[in-house]
Amino acid sequence: MTETRIDRTGLTATPNNEGVDAAVAAARRVIDALLHSGDMSAVEMTQVAEQLNAVADHLEAHAPTVGERMVDMWRGEGVTRHDPVTGPENAIAPPLRLYGRDDGSIEGEVVLGMPYQGPPGCVHGGVSALLLDHTLGVANAWAGTSGMTGTLTLRYHRPTPLFERLTVTGRQTSVDGRKIYTTGTITAGGQVCVTAEGLFIDKQLDRPR
Amino acid sequence: MTETRIDRTGLTATPNNEGVDAAVAAARRVIDALLHSGDMSAVEMTQVAEQLNAVADHLEAHAPTVGERMVDMWRGEGVTRHDPVTGPENAIAPPLRLYGRDDGSIEGEVVLGMPYQGPPGCVHGGVSALLLDHTLGVANAWAGTSGMTGTLTLRYHRPTPLFERLTVTGRQTSVDGRKIYTTGTITAGGQVCVTAEGLFIDKQLDRPR
Repeated sequence: MTETRIDRTGLTATPNNEGVDAAVAAARRVIDALLHSGDMSAVEMTQVAEQLNAVADHLEAHAPTVGERMVDMWRGEGVTRHDPVTGPENAIAPPLRLYGRDDGSIEGEVVLGMPYQGPPGCVHGGVSALLLDHTLGVANAWAGTSGMTGTLTLRYHRPTPLFERLTVTGRQTSVDGRKIYTTGTITAGGQVCVTAEGLFIDKQLDRPR
Repeated sequence: MTETRIDRTGLTATPNNEGVDAAVAAARRVIDALLHSGDMSAVEMTQVAEQLNAVADHLEAHAPTVGERMVDMWRGEGVTRHDPVTGPENAIAPPLRLYGRDDGSIEGEVVLGMPYQGPPGCVHGGVSALLLDHTLGVANAWAGTSGMTGTLTLRYHRPTPLFERLTVTGRQTSVDGRKIYTTGTITAGGQVCVTAEGLFIDKQLDRPR
């Protein structure tokens, strides 16, 4: 079996470890720690709420208008930094980083913790759908013809474990006029947990200017 | 057209506005404000990162072990408080609150902001999938026979707007042995944006004890 070569330049935004990316990474720690604490925690949560509200107040007071921010976040044609799957500026995103393989497919690895739980100890089925929908979109961009999701079908083969290394893959399989067909998988320990098939339509919404 | 009556007791956890729920609500404000600020913000993000890391350090230092927390969060048989769609303890959750209707279906309303963006100004297709997967599961619980997602098919009819009131519905349509069939929709301003069909299998993973 020959090794598939991976292009380590990355198809998704690279976190800076400074500026807003560092603040977002810290926010991810807070989200996770709140779930690990729960309501039985010995921590005085009223004080935690006050501290977090003070941070939010400060940020909101200095934020640009939504219109200005939308233009800024969609500037250029490069990878997005704010989406809920790969975005270094979005604390909801794990974030997943995706790389192109020389066979035309893409892959990424991620470990999902408490915020992404569905059944006990397992990844929420809808979170797997979120990761795969986005990965199929990036696979299309990597293949050169991308669009918007028309139909997405997910098959859940076995529970996807939390706290373990998952491999997420995507591959554009064919293009027929404006129809784009794309598949993807989530595997854990070499076993397929979830597969996805997507039909995408070759169109884009205008970016705000 | 007769009005469908809604049972306002709710099928999902009710936020407390105190304790961990209040801290999580504040964390949601931080997530949102960080996206509204972006890297062009006038705010000194290094200081924000330090403040958030200090909160995370404090929470982590007082958190129970993962094993203890898992048993605690899955205690009882009631609605979960930690899932990434409806959970008052999960800052990733909008949260969506769902209610039973007297025709056997369920519904909820939600406005999604910047953290849930996919295409410019629109909800990420994978976020719609996340909301619908969970809503179909709650619809099954409301109907009395629930299980794990086997296959989920999503159809995207038109872009789902950010910043507008969305209605999310779910309905169990039939049960055939261990197979459960369930549908759902996301509508905005009376127009259908996304539809979902799910095949669920009547089984549950054991809760940690």
